[in-house]
Formats: sequence, structure tokens, C-alpha cells
Amino acid sequence: MRLGELSERSGVSTATIKYYLREGLLAPGRQINATTAEYGEDHLRRLRLVRALIQVGRVPVANARQALKHVDDDSLGLTMRLGAALWELPQGPEPDEADPATAAARAQVDRLLAELGWESAREIGALSPVHRSLVGLVALLIRLGYPCDAELMAPYAQLMHAAARLDLDRMETYASDTEKVELAVSSAVLFEPVLRALHRMAQEEESARRYGIV
Amino acid sequence: MRLGELSERSGVSTATIKYYLREGLLAPGRQINATTAEYGEDHLRRLRLVRALIQVGRVPVANARQALKHVDDDSLGLTMRLGAALWELPQGPEPDEADPATAAARAQVDRLLAELGWESAREIGALSPVHRSLVGLVALLIRLGYPCDAELMAPYAQLMHAAARLDLDRMETYASDTEKVELAVSSAVLFEPVLRALHRMAQEEESARRYGIV
Repeated sequence: MRLGELSERSGVSTATIKYYLREGLLAPGRQINATTAEYGEDHLRRLRLVRALIQVGRVPVANARQALKHVDDDSLGLTMRLGAALWELPQGPEPDEADPATAAARAQVDRLLAELGWESAREIGALSPVHRSLVGLVALLIRLGYPCDAELMAPYAQLMHAAARLDLDRMETYASDTEKVELAVSSAVLFEPVLRALHRMAQEEESARRYGIV
Repeated sequence: MRLGELSERSGVSTATIKYYLREGLLAPGRQINATTAEYGEDHLRRLRLVRALIQVGRVPVANARQALKHVDDDSLGLTMRLGAALWELPQGPEPDEADPATAAARAQVDRLLAELGWESAREIGALSPVHRSLVGLVALLIRLGYPCDAELMAPYAQLMHAAARLDLDRMETYASDTEKVELAVSSAVLFEPVLRALHRMAQEEESARRYGIV
């Protein structure tokens, strides 16, 4: 398809598509003459992902470019490719090592992973910004005087593990590794807010069941 | 305690405490003479909550003031008091009624609630910004070409219901309704990011188990 059709089918203006092409967020089309390029279904799919990242997720262009580079990097195994792509997305606060609450928080996160038997998460922990961000968040709660320890987090972590199994089952319905990683990245931006809304709605439902509506 | 001790124990500067007092986010202390007021443990607790909302959750001051008004409103039943306080917090996108994806999304959310038997969430739905925000998010996914229907959401909603039961069990360990609502509000701001980090970490763990680490 030509640029005009790509714009129409994606709902992204031609000016924005040209900007994404210049920024290297979208691969160039197949040049058919000096002024015209041809685009395929993979361009359309990638364009949706770029829009999800930039326009909806407000991910900075530099981070989006890095994430997409990892999406396309088939030299890595699937776990590291997923990790590398997702780790470019905005994370929670970095832990403040000067704060004594950080050491307490790290001890609780370590204990949590040990109790859950999450051996791989422990192993990846030294690399993973997700691990650092969890330590930072738990430290913040401790500093503000809200208790947050391994016992409190464990049952929630089990539920999140069940959610992760559903995520990966869904991912496996896609044929190529590139499409799998694309789904994971778009889900992190678009589906996490759905999960949060479902959580808040479940709180309303459960609260009404326990205490009535009025 | 005096202002200085309140500042020291909360880690909030006296200038910021005075600002919160002026903005009506914190009740005045008991005046013991023209220049000195006395503060209690309830001031300390409220100060932590205000800091969680404003400094950590980046909740606008006007929203925080409204949320706290509902926290203190003991004329309402617990469900509506919780709802009113939580509904002041930032939500997802408002649905665009002019977009045909919105009608499709609303139909999926209605079907989801019917299938789950979430009668109260359906009943509160017309009032609840959480319901509107879920419709807006699902419409966004549909518009971007990512399928999101009742079948896909149902197992996630069940997991979130289990999380909501844990939330409310924890809330019930607090004696007063005011403390219960305070915990719910602080959790929405501080614990939701922990849940998101646990979800991402569970994805890393599950991915490593299925596909290896390298």
C-alpha cells in the first residue's frame, strides 16, 4: 500500500508517519520510484505499536526507539528480548541507596522471591530495572510509615503470577517471536491500565457485597 | 506535639505543613496560646496520607482536598465513602461517545460484568468514573486494533477480585471507618505501583521458566 492508504488504515496522519520514519521508529517502505514507497501489513502493525507507545503510553521517543530495536533483535533468546524491550519503558522510582529504608526494602524483596521460589527473577534481579523499581517502591512505603513486607506481598505476587501465565499463554498464540515481543510491549502500555481499572472495579464490587451500597 | 516535632516525625518541612494547613488538607491543631498549637497522632497519620497523595501520587491539590473531605464524611456508608474518596483520584481516559469503538467497548464491559455476576459494579456503573474509564480504555485498545473483549478480560477480572478480597481483609484490621478509607486511598496511590511491579516481575519469572534465561 502507499503512504496515503497506510495513513487511512492506521488513523495516523501522513505527517506523523513521516516523522516516525525520520526518527527511525518505522522501517522505510520498499522504494518503487524516486517519490513513491510501498508499505506492507508489517508496517501497519508496527505503526499501531509506535502510536500505542508514543501517543498513548507517553513513552519518550528515545525509549521507544530503543524498545523497538530490542523487539527486532533476533540474536537474543525470547526472555532477554522481552526483558530488554520492556525494560526501556518507564519504571517506578530508582531506590535511594543513602536511605536506610532501601536496605530494609531490599531484604523484604529478597525474602519474597525466596519464599515464592522465583529463582529466575532472583537471578535476573541484578540486571532488571523492574527489581530495582520494586525495591524503590517498597522503600517509599516504609519511609511513609505504611508497612510493606514479604508476607503482605506474597499472596498478591501469586495472583500476579497467575496473570503472567495468562499473558504468556496469549503471547504464544502469535507465530513469530517479533509479534510475541510486540504484544508484550503493547500490553505493558495498554493492558496494564485495564488491569488497574478491573482491580478498582473489583474493589467496588467486593465493598458493596460486604458493606452494602448505601 | 508541637509543629517542630510533627515535622521531624513526618519528614515533612514546617513550611510544607503550614501550606497544607492553609490549603485545608490538614485540620488545624489545638491552639494552646496565640502562637502555639498542639498536634496529635491523627495529624501525623493524615500528614503521611497527604504526602502520599501530593508528593508521590502527584494528585492535584484540589482533588486531594475533595478526596480527604470524603475520607472524613461519616454521613455516608462505607462503600460510598470509599467510592467517593477513590473517585477523586486520577482515572484513565474518558470515553469519546462520538467514536463507534466506545459503543463496542461498553457492550464488552456490560457482558463482562454480567458473566462475572458483578451485580453491584453494574449498579454503581452509572455513577462510577472507574466504569467509564474501563470503557474508555477498552475503546482505545479496539481503536488501535488490539482485540479486548469480555472473554479476554474475564480471567484477569477474577484475579483482580481475589486481590480486592485481600485489600478489604487488610482494611478490616483497622478499627475506625476513617482509618479504613485512609488505607484504601493510600493503597490506590502507593500499592497499585507495587502490584504493577510484581506483575512485571512475574512475567520475567514465567518467561524464564518457559523459554530459559539466555
